[in-house]
Amino acid sequence: MIVVIQCKDQVGLVAGITGVLSGEQLNIVSLREHVDKGENRFFIRIHIEQETDSQALEAKLQPVLPPDAVIKVNPLPEKKVVVLVTKEYHCLADILVRHHFKTLGAQVQCVIGNHDVLQNFCQRFDIPFYLVSHELQDKTAFEKQLTGLIDKYTPDYVVLAKFMRILSPGFVARYTGRIINIHHSFLPAFVGANPYRQAFERGVKLIGATAHFVTNELDEGPIIAQQIIPVTHSHTAGDMMKAGKEIETSVLAKALHLVFEDRVLVYKNKTVVFE
Amino acid sequence: MIVVIQCKDQVGLVAGITGVLSGEQLNIVSLREHVDKGENRFFIRIHIEQETDSQALEAKLQPVLPPDAVIKVNPLPEKKVVVLVTKEYHCLADILVRHHFKTLGAQVQCVIGNHDVLQNFCQRFDIPFYLVSHELQDKTAFEKQLTGLIDKYTPDYVVLAKFMRILSPGFVARYTGRIINIHHSFLPAFVGANPYRQAFERGVKLIGATAHFVTNELDEGPIIAQQIIPVTHSHTAGDMMKAGKEIETSVLAKALHLVFEDRVLVYKNKTVVFE
Amino acid sequence: MIVVIQCKDQVGLVAGITGVLSGEQLNIVSLREHVDKGENRFFIRIHIEQETDSQALEAKLQPVLPPDAVIKVNPLPEKKVVVLVTKEYHCLADILVRHHFKTLGAQVQCVIGNHDVLQNFCQRFDIPFYLVSHELQDKTAFEKQLTGLIDKYTPDYVVLAKFMRILSPGFVARYTGRIINIHHSFLPAFVGANPYRQAFERGVKLIGATAHFVTNELDEGPIIAQQIIPVTHSHTAGDMMKAGKEIETSVLAKALHLVFEDRVLVYKNKTVVFE
Amino acid sequence: MIVVIQCKDQVGLVAGITGVLSGEQLNIVSLREHVDKGENRFFIRIHIEQETDSQALEAKLQPVLPPDAVIKVNPLPEKKVVVLVTKEYHCLADILVRHHFKTLGAQVQCVIGNHDVLQNFCQRFDIPFYLVSHELQDKTAFEKQLTGLIDKYTPDYVVLAKFMRILSPGFVARYTGRIINIHHSFLPAFVGANPYRQAFERGVKLIGATAHFVTNELDEGPIIAQQIIPVTHSHTAGDMMKAGKEIETSVLAKALHLVFEDRVLVYKNKTVVFE
Repeated sequence: MIVVIQCKDQVGLVAGITGVLSGEQLNIVSLREHVDKGENRFFIRIHIEQETDSQALEAKLQPVLPPDAVIKVNPLPEKKVVVLVTKEYHCLADILVRHHFKTLGAQVQCVIGNHDVLQNFCQRFDIPFYLVSHELQDKTAFEKQLTGLIDKYTPDYVVLAKFMRILSPGFVARYTGRIINIHHSFLPAFVGANPYRQAFERGVKLIGATAHFVTNELDEGPIIAQQIIPVTHSHTAGDMMKAGKEIETSVLAKALHLVFEDRVLVYKNKTVVFE
Repeated sequence: MIVVIQCKDQVGLVAGITGVLSGEQLNIVSLREHVDKGENRFFIRIHIEQETDSQALEAKLQPVLPPDAVIKVNPLPEKKVVVLVTKEYHCLADILVRHHFKTLGAQVQCVIGNHDVLQNFCQRFDIPFYLVSHELQDKTAFEKQLTGLIDKYTPDYVVLAKFMRILSPGFVARYTGRIINIHHSFLPAFVGANPYRQAFERGVKLIGATAHFVTNELDEGPIIAQQIIPVTHSHTAGDMMKAGKEIETSVLAKALHLVFEDRVLVYKNKTVVFE
Repeated sequence: MIVVIQCKDQVGLVAGITGVLSGEQLNIVSLREHVDKGENRFFIRIHIEQETDSQALEAKLQPVLPPDAVIKVNPLPEKKVVVLVTKEYHCLADILVRHHFKTLGAQVQCVIGNHDVLQNFCQRFDIPFYLVSHELQDKTAFEKQLTGLIDKYTPDYVVLAKFMRILSPGFVARYTGRIINIHHSFLPAFVGANPYRQAFERGVKLIGATAHFVTNELDEGPIIAQQIIPVTHSHTAGDMMKAGKEIETSVLAKALHLVFEDRVLVYKNKTVVFE
Repeated sequence: MIVVIQCKDQVGLVAGITGVLSGEQLNIVSLREHVDKGENRFFIRIHIEQETDSQALEAKLQPVLPPDAVIKVNPLPEKKVVVLVTKEYHCLADILVRHHFKTLGAQVQCVIGNHDVLQNFCQRFDIPFYLVSHELQDKTAFEKQLTGLIDKYTPDYVVLAKFMRILSPGFVARYTGRIINIHHSFLPAFVGANPYRQAFERGVKLIGATAHFVTNELDEGPIIAQQIIPVTHSHTAGDMMKAGKEIETSVLAKALHLVFEDRVLVYKNKTVVFE
């Protein structure tokens, strides 16, 4: 069982929390704690050997914590996720393969695409695919269709697996802290469109990918994971894009793994990641 | 202030320890805990904001811990170290440069070489250098000279910075858990002499370096840090050696940094490293 | 078009070869040359802008080369491959997904498994799957079944994508230089069975994976690509195996990509890889 | 001996060049060629076993090349360099240590600092150090002092080893393509001042360093090498700066090594690096 807590810092928090656990005869397998001195903020993740009643444990923890504390007591996965895609297959395929072989740590409930390119692939894995085209309707209507579908599934997370539409503040607010995106650059380099073309023009020797939570600032949300891959003068912009897909796939996989295991805590525009 | 403890695992250890700290009004900046389930062993490192009396704190911690507990309450560095070398400069130079600019986190008390090649370099940094040749005397006499010198300085650690002599069990026992070596391969590949020649003959695509504590099994001690660097068909054995020196330098630097900050706990043949 | 040549070294080879190309008005996009001085061996890979008649070009190149020259004039892929598997899905899935989306650079003709675990997965991608069990028959009969199937497809390469049976010298000889294996360790560390258990026992801080051509010495064939991933004290042997699968997948993908683009030349027990 | 050529691309260049070499009975150890199709530009680096008369060889190569060809026939190092510093020691120390042990591949002629912090360190290595303060004089006067000193030494390259002053277009023009800088970020992320503070604020999970040639656009010159190091939530801006120094040191060392071995060709705002 995983206990994740964040609150303002004060002396005695760890003692208080672990005292409660010890009183319940719960055994700590692994504990990670972090205090952000600048923000005076306390973060902790505790992996407990046993399973116990979540709500009862939360209730016992509350008295030893400040009133602002956010407590999550989670059984290890399954999280539920909805995946949004456009045309590129690499991230989706990685997710669906892991899901198919039960190593994703989450339940993929459906895939929504604004193109039908990946419909056939989803069908091969018996995953419901919905085509919601952004054409022939305005953004409000488009997003209404999306949220209608998503909300039917009540997912824990919405994963943008190379979904190439910018979402409105209203959409983002509806799923605050629950939308995960893969951006095809080493943020904050090459914000926005066509980062591989930008990287090629600049003559960089490394290209990157960034998995992050989505907020209303484009490509400015809290970063979960980043990775790079070396490139050389012999890479065209197209070669960089190909090389980039490899790390997009692996960095999104890593970020999802971290999130699904409750290893990522968000505060303001940053993450605390207890790997 | 750093508190490092290892002992057999039991329920309530973190609560007990942090309860003592909280009772002393000590603030935890960062806490890392690990339980090795196979060995039923508990490891913890706590970074405390304040400084306090070490012995008094140890005395207060003892009652909440099992009798086998090893407790260290350390002020952050300075550790004291003696460095042993042969002819190669790269690791020594890195250590002495950091020492010179006070970023090593330890006090280099002297350098002992079994050749005089690096004497001049040590002098440039005003570090005492002792030549103890292994020639013209047997191993027992050679090591007696070494230990005589080392013991005068009562160092916390003996660093083998490319010291190319194999030390006897008696020597190793004298400084149990306190000798750190840099081995020029990705252990356990290429144990023993001439690992770069071995790597070249095998046609590997990566070469490595390993920093480890020295035990009586050659190249078998607990590993602190490892690193690799890519090589290609165009690397001769000599080129691999050159490339290898770069990671030997950086992996030893990293290992020393970890050890000097009390981030490395040893149990049996393994380390727990709280980075 | 790709021209790949190896032969004993002598003065004037590049001039001779490129003189022929220039005489044919063929434009060189990229040229990589390597001479192994120890072996006095010459290797070259030339990427030519145009396509031309392979046999005619080979015939024109022969007179400027020593008699031992091995010349390959290849259109860029499609290579043909047969994949052998046991129960683990990760490498096979990566191959079949790339194949499905036409980014593998090769044609997967069929998959042969000594267990039926992955049959359903292959069917989802419309790839023929053959179950050839090693049970209830001796190795000779088992391999006869394998070669019977493989030979029907006349593949360029046989890919062992976590195929957990050791093949006989006779089998290996039949496909000399054409069998590619993924080994789940950083060779030559942890040769043989259960490398992750070995790595865990040793307490390493990095684990690796190696893609190599298969020869009759177990895990001793020419290495194509290697990769590592960091691990810590908190990884159990099982966690290492999970982490290892990620790099097994990516290093095999990389090796196949290099081989399918004719970037890998083999001589004796080593490879020249023109990335 | 190294031959490096760039010119506009046309059919037959490699044949022409290697024909000349072969006519001289010169043996090619290694050849790297690259054509930038977008720019229609040809780049080649040839490592020749023998030494020969540079000017005579250049004269023989000219007729087989287009008139715009830039030909360099160089003996392998020694290049001559002047190093500019401010207060930080890490890059300078790395350069001087390698220089001291004759593994830099270049001759350090002098060090110029706009503070005197590193004077003592240079003296320990018997390297002339000049203090040229930017205080109490305007930029023109400051740079006049700098160029006066530099020009006395006629260096091949001016290395900015954490020189924290922005140089004027006039200064840069004086040493076009010959000034190498280390920038403390993964360009183009975090251009300008205080990149570690910027990286900390953004909550990145990797930080980088970039070695590049200096042009008149701030931090926009052709990139030679880049490297990254992972960071976590537990890194303060100060910790990131410390971690960053490690890669600043190694990426500048790598870039200098590449430049000193004539492996870096510059065209417009990009480099071709034949590693």
